[in-house]
Amino acid sequence: MSEPKVLIIGAGLLGTSLGLALSRQGVVPGIEDLSKANQRLAIEYGAGVRPFEEPDLVFVCVPPDITAQAVVDQLKKYPRAIVTDVASVKSFILEEVASQVDSAALARYVGSHPMAGREKGGPGSARADLFFARPWVITPRVDNDSLAVSLIRDAANRIGALPIELSVEKHDSAVALVSHLPQLLSSLLAARLLSGSEEQLNLAGQGLRDTARIASSDADLWIQIISQNAGQILPLLVGLQSDLNQLVASISNLDEVGALAKVHTILDAGNRGVSKIPGKHGGKFLEYQLVTVVIDDSPGALAGLLMFIGEIGVNIEDLKLEHSPGAAIGLVELQVMPESAGRLVEKLSENGWRLV
Amino acid sequence: MSEPKVLIIGAGLLGTSLGLALSRQGVVPGIEDLSKANQRLAIEYGAGVRPFEEPDLVFVCVPPDITAQAVVDQLKKYPRAIVTDVASVKSFILEEVASQVDSAALARYVGSHPMAGREKGGPGSARADLFFARPWVITPRVDNDSLAVSLIRDAANRIGALPIELSVEKHDSAVALVSHLPQLLSSLLAARLLSGSEEQLNLAGQGLRDTARIASSDADLWIQIISQNAGQILPLLVGLQSDLNQLVASISNLDEVGALAKVHTILDAGNRGVSKIPGKHGGKFLEYQLVTVVIDDSPGALAGLLMFIGEIGVNIEDLKLEHSPGAAIGLVELQVMPESAGRLVEKLSENGWRLV
Repeated sequence: MSEPKVLIIGAGLLGTSLGLALSRQGVVPGIEDLSKANQRLAIEYGAGVRPFEEPDLVFVCVPPDITAQAVVDQLKKYPRAIVTDVASVKSFILEEVASQVDSAALARYVGSHPMAGREKGGPGSARADLFFARPWVITPRVDNDSLAVSLIRDAANRIGALPIELSVEKHDSAVALVSHLPQLLSSLLAARLLSGSEEQLNLAGQGLRDTARIASSDADLWIQIISQNAGQILPLLVGLQSDLNQLVASISNLDEVGALAKVHTILDAGNRGVSKIPGKHGGKFLEYQLVTVVIDDSPGALAGLLMFIGEIGVNIEDLKLEHSPGAAIGLVELQVMPESAGRLVEKLSENGWRLV
Repeated sequence: MSEPKVLIIGAGLLGTSLGLALSRQGVVPGIEDLSKANQRLAIEYGAGVRPFEEPDLVFVCVPPDITAQAVVDQLKKYPRAIVTDVASVKSFILEEVASQVDSAALARYVGSHPMAGREKGGPGSARADLFFARPWVITPRVDNDSLAVSLIRDAANRIGALPIELSVEKHDSAVALVSHLPQLLSSLLAARLLSGSEEQLNLAGQGLRDTARIASSDADLWIQIISQNAGQILPLLVGLQSDLNQLVASISNLDEVGALAKVHTILDAGNRGVSKIPGKHGGKFLEYQLVTVVIDDSPGALAGLLMFIGEIGVNIEDLKLEHSPGAAIGLVELQVMPESAGRLVEKLSENGWRLV
């Protein structure tokens, strides 16, 4: 495909990151923002230029509650352009847009949703790699202009994202489960910490930290997302409510026959549920093997380890340094392909590296 | 203090890790296990020797539901020894022990709880560093032998753990909040995933992974912990239930005046709650600064970066490699002391490293 003329509306985290990613691939977009400071910052970062020509493809990257109106505005302003948006909920925006434009304009709108983000917002948090190897959901409809999906898919591919086509309904139902429900659970948990004392919270370990991490997400953004996807979130919350009621009833009467078994059932369902998540922590896409090496706590030691691994030609897929403040040693957790793990362990051991 | 004679009962994850840690410090403990295979493995790992003398200090490291009986057995078997245990709930065990021994024996028992663990159990998962820099809660009572607490405190100090004294009640209330509640929430969330399709779960991101991670913990172990601490967990679950009921009611009737504000209140409480957690993800103990560097995706590139940082004399407190499968680049997240961050950024930039 020839290079499309791209316009980005909104120079926040997503818009600026998209602009950086496209610019690196030689597709320098126009980028604009109601905030002239944000626009200028994004342009100075290299996320695009001041718009000067009519676009083929417009990405609307503004907050969810003003996305629909911005899509409508762009469809009207550029009567030949394909327009998409990057908001987290698709049905709500589609309904709003459909109610305000004619069918020819609607055919040029396809919602999309890159599955990427950070807890920090704004152009200053942007990363050219934000979308790299992340799913970019596109939600085509039968009434769409045939060019629409392919233009968006092409742009996603250019920046290394993984385009996936899902219907608007399937998308909204999926994100309710894998994104909106965890957000609410994490917030509900973290809200309980308000009653905790400093003495209690000083005992916090990694389990609490991980479970409560996303509770720090922007509350103002999330009420927009939740209110737009309430229909999909509600049945999941009701299911959870039912499990929680069961759990409270069982824990209130542990002496009753079967009470402990009911608690076990929920814990066991949790075991099975988490194993369904693909990727490094979970289910069937698990493909790396963990090799843990003990090193002295110095940058030189880690560098030496990595030099050695480089020399024996083993590629590291992921690396985590477990460091305890003040400790004389550190643990390096290396994720490698299973076929490399045996040789890595053997070579490390032979050469005096300490494995756990 | 002179070196105490230590006996470890139970060669699982905790007992074997403790044995490894003590042995490294020159205090080689006796270690025994009902499973002769586990005992042998622990001894071969270097976690101790076959017991041959009367101990001064016994660590009972067996599953929670048989801990009290094992403590009683050890108090009776060694009438001069101090006995402690490492189970996650303390009141329940104390009551059981108190009901079975006289006051002189009870004076020799002090419950303790090292705040460390792994999702994997057994001696094969043991680590000499498991307790390093982690809180080791000791729960003294007025009726205790004066030597008891100091012996346990000394052992914890020897292996680099951080002894903290709390009453039995305060301990159990704290772990209900910072450990047992997150476990149940994570399980409740992960249980919802059972209804998810592969298509939906393929959209899972880091938020879901982190929130659901501890749902993979051993269900059999956790029903023991939960049933022993039901009294402390229940009010927290009831508080959560109340928030969840409020959330469901609000999301069911978002058009009602004030409904959205109620959702916002919970999200905001989550924001404030998570900020109370001390340490790297949270509140006031935050002391490292993040510097993110872009590197080629090769072990050599990372090694080169770390060599360079070693040469300029900056110490890395924590390191995380963000790697997208198949990507040509990786992001290295370095945590450094704030006073080093400026110089690190400057030197890296001057020497052509790409910062984010």
